Amino acid sequence: MHTLEQLQQRAIEIIDAQNYLSEPLSLYEPIDYGMRQGGKRIRPLLCLIAAELCGGDISQAEPAAVAVEMLHNFTLLHDDIMDCSPLRRGKPTVFRKFSQNKAILSGDAMFACAFKYLLQCDKEVIPQLAETLTRGAIEVCEGQGFDMDFENRRTVSADEYLQMIKLKTGVLLSTALRLGAITAKADTKTLNLLDTFGKYIGIAFQIKDDMLDCWSDLDTFGKVCGADIIDRKKTFLYITALETATPDQRQELLSLYEDSTLDKDEKIQKVRAIYEQLSVAQKAQKAVEKYNSEAFEALEQIDIAPQRKATLIEVAKKLIDRNK
Amino acid sequence: MHTLEQLQQRAIEIIDAQNYLSEPLSLYEPIDYGMRQGGKRIRPLLCLIAAELCGGDISQAEPAAVAVEMLHNFTLLHDDIMDCSPLRRGKPTVFRKFSQNKAILSGDAMFACAFKYLLQCDKEVIPQLAETLTRGAIEVCEGQGFDMDFENRRTVSADEYLQMIKLKTGVLLSTALRLGAITAKADTKTLNLLDTFGKYIGIAFQIKDDMLDCWSDLDTFGKVCGADIIDRKKTFLYITALETATPDQRQELLSLYEDSTLDKDEKIQKVRAIYEQLSVAQKAQKAVEKYNSEAFEALEQIDIAPQRKATLIEVAKKLIDRNK
Repeated sequence: MHTLEQLQQRAIEIIDAQNYLSEPLSLYEPIDYGMRQGGKRIRPLLCLIAAELCGGDISQAEPAAVAVEMLHNFTLLHDDIMDCSPLRRGKPTVFRKFSQNKAILSGDAMFACAFKYLLQCDKEVIPQLAETLTRGAIEVCEGQGFDMDFENRRTVSADEYLQMIKLKTGVLLSTALRLGAITAKADTKTLNLLDTFGKYIGIAFQIKDDMLDCWSDLDTFGKVCGADIIDRKKTFLYITALETATPDQRQELLSLYEDSTLDKDEKIQKVRAIYEQLSVAQKAQKAVEKYNSEAFEALEQIDIAPQRKATLIEVAKKLIDRNK
Repeated sequence: MHTLEQLQQRAIEIIDAQNYLSEPLSLYEPIDYGMRQGGKRIRPLLCLIAAELCGGDISQAEPAAVAVEMLHNFTLLHDDIMDCSPLRRGKPTVFRKFSQNKAILSGDAMFACAFKYLLQCDKEVIPQLAETLTRGAIEVCEGQGFDMDFENRRTVSADEYLQMIKLKTGVLLSTALRLGAITAKADTKTLNLLDTFGKYIGIAFQIKDDMLDCWSDLDTFGKVCGADIIDRKKTFLYITALETATPDQRQELLSLYEDSTLDKDEKIQKVRAIYEQLSVAQKAQKAVEKYNSEAFEALEQIDIAPQRKATLIEVAKKLIDRNK
């Protein structure tokens, strides 16, 4: 077994070691650019961890780890177009740096390349791996579809929001874990429990992300604080506030969110004030803990010696307890 | 064995019989719309024909036939955005009818759904099928990448053009044939020969398409005649003309193509006049015949009784001898 640091190192190495360039360069350069933006490589890491947890060899899981990172980056290329995001990790997004058409086409090719990497795994497990990657991709698209729908609705329920982030964020973590476990020939029960673990960790992770966007400071988080409020995002905080507000508070929050004449900082301060009146931070923290424990309950049920689970527990804690 | 009419009927039926709708509707409605635009269903048809040609059962090939049509339609959704095409088969394109973001996202989901259908095939052949669909998708993206590059170049050689249309048009025909043949457990030699057949037929088909765009009349072809000239497309005709023109003719053609002040009909007439001076139609027809015979040579080498090849020969002739 490897330590978390070793696996983290390996995850970064295998993504960096690939050659993403080929002809035509106009197709492959944006792919190369997207794959070399750094980042924590959480999904490949989870894939390797799951493989070891299930008694497999990480070298067997490596093509699957590249595949899931490819799939993740494909969704980023297209999401950035849909959200008109100019920057990602401080650098121009692919559609801004190259062009929109190139970001569409290179994203498509990345999706296909994810399968190309996956098919380098042991032939025996290909059908199961392909099924997992396919379902993961479909569910991520569904999550993005719900997210787009929610933008055009005045209110969204907390349940709807949780379902959406499970698809949009949780599913890729589950997919990463499941792929790794499949390469280690894990049984169905283990696969399903890892799936559940990934989905709940994903939900907890996203709620934490909503909190960090609202309350952390720019220097630590690396993003402008309160961006979700300015972008009128229906976050867990906003939805929770609306669901627990008095009619007056509710009206104020709805008006504030829609007011485009207000100074940005003032708007953020006023929304935060309502959140504080309604103890939204505490409620969000409680939700993080709830989904976190649901995740760990699933993990406990996996019939594997506890010490084999240590790395996964460690990484999940880091994802949830982060302050950036 | 079935007749071509029976297989054509079946190809249409299986595409029509699928339920493409699910939640969120905003994701699946554009897919349903795209898949129900009709058309000749050539790719699913080729898939079924190849399965029978190789002694397989068409019912085994049906999920693969749906998969290849899904893949084809995914490329149409994204190509129409990239080309800003308002209409397809006389109806608004998906990005015009829904929105650009929906066309991107639904296209992505279609790509994933192509794999979902493919995975319904016999498990034993899944690795081979998945590899074929993956390679097909990558090559189609490469073809589209070259096509986009060519738009920004003043000249493109005939060889470059042929390589591009092989990827953009030929590969999907090859993929369709190969998928069908794999479900019938065809050997590698047969698969490769069908591949070659599909690619050459694709090239011949595209050159024929360029000819029809230039010379057929609106009523027969269903598109505005001369659209490629107005869109400044570097077609086989344009490239052939440039390669065989005198310096004066070459200069005239280049200027005409770039002139945006000229009346459309006048422009089309003048470009056509140059094509006629240079016998471009005859040269194009010769190229169609050349690639057509190369395709048939490959087909002849397949070690299967000639009567089993009759349906494929019949459909290929229809694709090439069409006048719309």
